[in-house]
Amino acid sequence: MNIEIVNTGSELMLGRVLNTHQQWLCRQLADMGWVVSRQVAVDDTAEAIAAAVSEALRRADLVITTGGLGPTSDDRTRAVIASLLGVKLRQDEAVLARIQGYFTARKRPMVESTRVQALVPEGATVLLNQHGTAPGLVMQVNDPAGGPVRRLAMLPGPPRELRPMFTCQVAPLLRAAWGADTRFACRTLRTTGLGESLVEERIAPRLEPLTQAGLQLGYCARIGEVDVRLAAAGPNGSRVVAEAENAVRSLLGDWIFGVDDEALEEVVIRELTARRLTVATAESCTGGMISHRLTNVPGASAVFWGGVVSYANAAKELLLGVSPALLAEHGAVSEPVVRAMAEGARRRSGADYALAVTGIAGPGGGSEGKPVGTVFIGLAGPQDTVAARHLNPFDRETFKWATSQQALELLRRALLKQESPPA
Amino acid sequence: MNIEIVNTGSELMLGRVLNTHQQWLCRQLADMGWVVSRQVAVDDTAEAIAAAVSEALRRADLVITTGGLGPTSDDRTRAVIASLLGVKLRQDEAVLARIQGYFTARKRPMVESTRVQALVPEGATVLLNQHGTAPGLVMQVNDPAGGPVRRLAMLPGPPRELRPMFTCQVAPLLRAAWGADTRFACRTLRTTGLGESLVEERIAPRLEPLTQAGLQLGYCARIGEVDVRLAAAGPNGSRVVAEAENAVRSLLGDWIFGVDDEALEEVVIRELTARRLTVATAESCTGGMISHRLTNVPGASAVFWGGVVSYANAAKELLLGVSPALLAEHGAVSEPVVRAMAEGARRRSGADYALAVTGIAGPGGGSEGKPVGTVFIGLAGPQDTVAARHLNPFDRETFKWATSQQALELLRRALLKQESPPA
Repeated sequence: MNIEIVNTGSELMLGRVLNTHQQWLCRQLADMGWVVSRQVAVDDTAEAIAAAVSEALRRADLVITTGGLGPTSDDRTRAVIASLLGVKLRQDEAVLARIQGYFTARKRPMVESTRVQALVPEGATVLLNQHGTAPGLVMQVNDPAGGPVRRLAMLPGPPRELRPMFTCQVAPLLRAAWGADTRFACRTLRTTGLGESLVEERIAPRLEPLTQAGLQLGYCARIGEVDVRLAAAGPNGSRVVAEAENAVRSLLGDWIFGVDDEALEEVVIRELTARRLTVATAESCTGGMISHRLTNVPGASAVFWGGVVSYANAAKELLLGVSPALLAEHGAVSEPVVRAMAEGARRRSGADYALAVTGIAGPGGGSEGKPVGTVFIGLAGPQDTVAARHLNPFDRETFKWATSQQALELLRRALLKQESPPA
Repeated sequence: MNIEIVNTGSELMLGRVLNTHQQWLCRQLADMGWVVSRQVAVDDTAEAIAAAVSEALRRADLVITTGGLGPTSDDRTRAVIASLLGVKLRQDEAVLARIQGYFTARKRPMVESTRVQALVPEGATVLLNQHGTAPGLVMQVNDPAGGPVRRLAMLPGPPRELRPMFTCQVAPLLRAAWGADTRFACRTLRTTGLGESLVEERIAPRLEPLTQAGLQLGYCARIGEVDVRLAAAGPNGSRVVAEAENAVRSLLGDWIFGVDDEALEEVVIRELTARRLTVATAESCTGGMISHRLTNVPGASAVFWGGVVSYANAAKELLLGVSPALLAEHGAVSEPVVRAMAEGARRRSGADYALAVTGIAGPGGGSEGKPVGTVFIGLAGPQDTVAARHLNPFDRETFKWATSQQALELLRRALLKQESPPA
């Protein structure tokens, strides 16, 4: 099945709003076995909408539009589509009653402009909106050249209206119309610590026979992370992807920290929980990002004791007991200091592990021996204290991200060496 | 000028990655006076890339592609474009030397597959990559029908490579080629603490005459923030936007915390710096997000002392001196405890202000009197300690964001009452 998405909205063309519909819709469709072939976004003039939709209808079995169904004057999708397909708009009494009920329930007078949302193209199926006043619309479009019938689904722009409408109303329609025998298997293996080209060098030759068998292999490199994406369509898709996953796991081993949408902090919290271990943090240059990431994970409170953000040297002395002499001798960004931070945090908190970072985020503060981007990471644990040095010569936010990634990975690898206790 | 963007990547079609290039590029171009007319995203097969780029070249004066310039086998843009335009690829020695230097600087052997990135289409201008190995490329494309020359800019996919390359190399090329006489004025006023409909109710009637004069008025509501976007094209655009800004400022006053891309944490750091004041944090339910946000701002180290993430009760006692009796009597999520946290952090750090939060992020932990989402925020300052209670009944990450926003806003409003010292 050939699917295209058309997003409309001048705010998209002006770059004022981030378009999250494309990823969300593509992900939902992929999970059902259908891959979108094109995403198009245009402004909300009638000409642009008509051009984008009519081009998409020439190519695709299904065209999904988003936006332009609201009550204001820049909401043109309804009228443009009706005109494009040569059908009339009719007032839908059920939709009108629902709009009136929406205002009654909120004890507000009905705004007259919202009435336009009850106009629907002749022949359209109405999708009721559980979270707003604009209904969605689905139409069948006959190919004048006698080809297969096309479908056009028009969805409202706000994500909290679009998402449940797609899940509860559009997806079942598609499953009923197309069946679900188009299978599409997809697995993402997430690695940290290796560069993209090194990852490919290690795994691509071994996967070559599977790509002959339909494996689609993709890489996505971000700072501190390289994803390997394994996908395959058809009845053998799941088997091909499973075989590929086994091969990649045997080649990359512990470099793989998680799968699919798993973040490194989720894996760390899970491993701590499984071993009934706790962690505390002592952050300088990451400024709280590590504890922020850990506490994004539900259940973190059972294994995360807390932490300190010892930004100033005085904070390192007061909160962690790092001695002024040590700071003076080696400087705040040094291996002895990061060890003292980790050990101080572990001693004071009583946690099983304490993770510490100190570094030079820049733009200022670098020197020849310790350029901007230099980071020391320390981990104090039940057996010993380990420390690592990294160079992350990035802008401030990327520096913080890369450093937090390296610190969490140091903890994850230490946990892998610890046996899980019996359940 | 007619501009189109073509993003390539199967990860986009499978919904595995959020496409942030469109918004970023559109925003940059709009700020220079050019509005993008179409965004297209396709997978990274040669056919899809060739179709999307050749269609775009028929319509647009400038086509910007993103992605597909890396070293792996799914990076096809370079070769597809060369073939589409009927030119050969040549090895660029300067690019090759740069790639070799990249590996040498990192003390790693050069991976052979990266060599492909030194291949550039004949006639292309090479854009050196400050943050990676893949160069960008700019080509002029002559219209066979004798129309004006088209431009094609190919940029690498990783945002931290694409963004500086666009800003430092592509934007100057465009300004030189097209001039900058297309004027488009745009100003965003950022508010926190008021709902979207309340903001609109307050300002829309007064702005009505200016919308007649060409003002484009837009709202963007996110959790804890409502942006008012004022835009106008043409020679009077700047005047219209300035008049609208004055009107909105007189109506919304202190509810406006910043303009354009200014984040609340930037404003807070700026106001602290101007008054030579310092702040410490004591975070429970936000888990370090407040200190993370503050330390994202360059220069934070001059005014941010540090903080504690007192997630466990033991951490509140040990790090902040909150008495076990107070915790037992009122519970960790209470006004007396947040006041004690703020005062303890201020006393121990010696900072001028200390900001404390404690709350119930959920999903568990709520009660009838204190449902999930309940938050107490405390601010201890030179004159007194103030506390506020909020209800943020959202998912975990949104809860943390909304709470950090309310806490930073409490500090910003306290600072506004403090005179700046003489320079």
